[in-house]
Amino acid sequence: MTQKSLITGGAGFLGSHLARQLLVDGHEVTVMDNLFTGTKANIYDLLDNPRFTFMLHDVTQPFWGQFDAIYNLACPASPIHYQRNPVETIKTSFLGMMNVLELALKTKARVFHTSTSEIYGDPEVHPQPEGYWGNVNTVGTRSCYDEGKRAAETLCADYAREYGVDVRLIRIFNTYGPNMHPQDGRVISNFIMQALGQRDITLYGDGSQTRSFQYVDDLIRAIRLFMGLAPERVRGFFAERKLGVPVINVGNPDEYTIRQLAEETLRQLPESKSRLVLAPLPQDDPRRRKPDITLARELLGWAPKVPLSEGLARTIAYFRTIA
Amino acid sequence: MTQKSLITGGAGFLGSHLARQLLVDGHEVTVMDNLFTGTKANIYDLLDNPRFTFMLHDVTQPFWGQFDAIYNLACPASPIHYQRNPVETIKTSFLGMMNVLELALKTKARVFHTSTSEIYGDPEVHPQPEGYWGNVNTVGTRSCYDEGKRAAETLCADYAREYGVDVRLIRIFNTYGPNMHPQDGRVISNFIMQALGQRDITLYGDGSQTRSFQYVDDLIRAIRLFMGLAPERVRGFFAERKLGVPVINVGNPDEYTIRQLAEETLRQLPESKSRLVLAPLPQDDPRRRKPDITLARELLGWAPKVPLSEGLARTIAYFRTIA
Repeated sequence: MTQKSLITGGAGFLGSHLARQLLVDGHEVTVMDNLFTGTKANIYDLLDNPRFTFMLHDVTQPFWGQFDAIYNLACPASPIHYQRNPVETIKTSFLGMMNVLELALKTKARVFHTSTSEIYGDPEVHPQPEGYWGNVNTVGTRSCYDEGKRAAETLCADYAREYGVDVRLIRIFNTYGPNMHPQDGRVISNFIMQALGQRDITLYGDGSQTRSFQYVDDLIRAIRLFMGLAPERVRGFFAERKLGVPVINVGNPDEYTIRQLAEETLRQLPESKSRLVLAPLPQDDPRRRKPDITLARELLGWAPKVPLSEGLARTIAYFRTIA
Repeated sequence: MTQKSLITGGAGFLGSHLARQLLVDGHEVTVMDNLFTGTKANIYDLLDNPRFTFMLHDVTQPFWGQFDAIYNLACPASPIHYQRNPVETIKTSFLGMMNVLELALKTKARVFHTSTSEIYGDPEVHPQPEGYWGNVNTVGTRSCYDEGKRAAETLCADYAREYGVDVRLIRIFNTYGPNMHPQDGRVISNFIMQALGQRDITLYGDGSQTRSFQYVDDLIRAIRLFMGLAPERVRGFFAERKLGVPVINVGNPDEYTIRQLAEETLRQLPESKSRLVLAPLPQDDPRRRKPDITLARELLGWAPKVPLSEGLARTIAYFRTIA
């Protein structure tokens, strides 16, 4: 029987990759999106697929549908977008998660939720294992995202514990690739757009803060592996580890400084005349973050495959088509 | 002009004290409560006051009313109650706060919100100043309360920053007194009920974890002082301190071990035959918590006045009437 899947936020960067892959896998795919940061362009090639449906709807409003799996990806994820309307951001995280879990409870759908390394905030432990509780400001300008995502995890844990909803979470670390929003203000899209536009590349702070960059295909592979596991396997694996909910980090632990990323971007764009310039670090910007991916390796036999130089080349090729 | 005040959760322990005091101050007081943990008995003597109204309503459902001030106290606050239905607990925190802030935005009401020392989780800094970000598990059995309360703070900060809602928060540390729920499982009510019932007094862990205990009258005084300040004074004070929202700790920094509390309870109940017994510490139970009340002193000229021995005597007198 064909699997029916709903992807909230499916017209966004990650959602559009997931939709495309689930169609390749033979699923019937419904993409729900309010098109606030997602865009029809990301899924344009899917619209005439008979197994694909687009549903214009905001995840904060209740919805109904019979699906085997619900992938909850709806939430603006870049500071530029989520700080434009902080109240809507935290509502999207919380109410969206609540609506997804309520529907899953009533229809017995399996739930995948995209959590984030941002729930670790400005971590005091490196690399971050899933058992680390994080270091997050409740009342700062990033809190609408961080605390919204933290509360969404809590909802997942409680619906799983109290009502037996089969929910699986990945804390996603920095991910990049084609279909990223060119104006989302995140470092890879910023650098490529600046270099392509012959504008100087801005390093916040001194550029020595590190990030791990995961190519989108690696993440999508992990999501599919995780959602394909039998519930008993998931329960058994996490019961031993006392984490409270099936949650794994997925990211690429290779660390690069922001300055190294800028230099690699310029190396791949030899025609660019951009130079590196410095600007002050924004409030609450995490200094360093790197995933501990032991659990993903053990549970899924997963490890990232695409090196930065290759992923960056594919991403630059995409940005050339839209710049 | 008489001030109109709404107290959500006003039939609970703290709410009933606040309602009584605001009536003394000359306010018109509406108490909203779903009576899940609150009880009519707590406000029975107020029901025939012409300036008092009781409204049976759940704060998670939208409501309307023209008030000068809204005091948001609705949320089960003891682990025994809030863990009975974790999903409802986090919904109460988040949706209740959202409904209060939406109403305040539309009606220009001033908002007081009861946050909690639980947002600090199991703190790694002692005592805790308001700038400390806390150490909280997102997916544990206490998370429904802790993360719900953290997200409520974030909502307050964002409604204040984005929409100019005049919101003031107190992070309340352990508070006790008459009208506490006798079965709420918190340490003071537990010990008194056990001693009055001639049952052994249970110390979790070895009883060496410390707590600060604040008598309810001290807290109510701080709430009234805080809500009485002019908005310019509040803005000025917190703008200097870069906290993101007007928030102060209110609690009694005198530390007692749980064992000392048990011994003082038994000293005041010489007729009790109860003995001290040990039991394992529950998951995520904070080992130690003590407020830094510098901001409350500076902003309100406030300090706690009622010593533990006196507050305990008044509380024991109350429990004798209901035991």
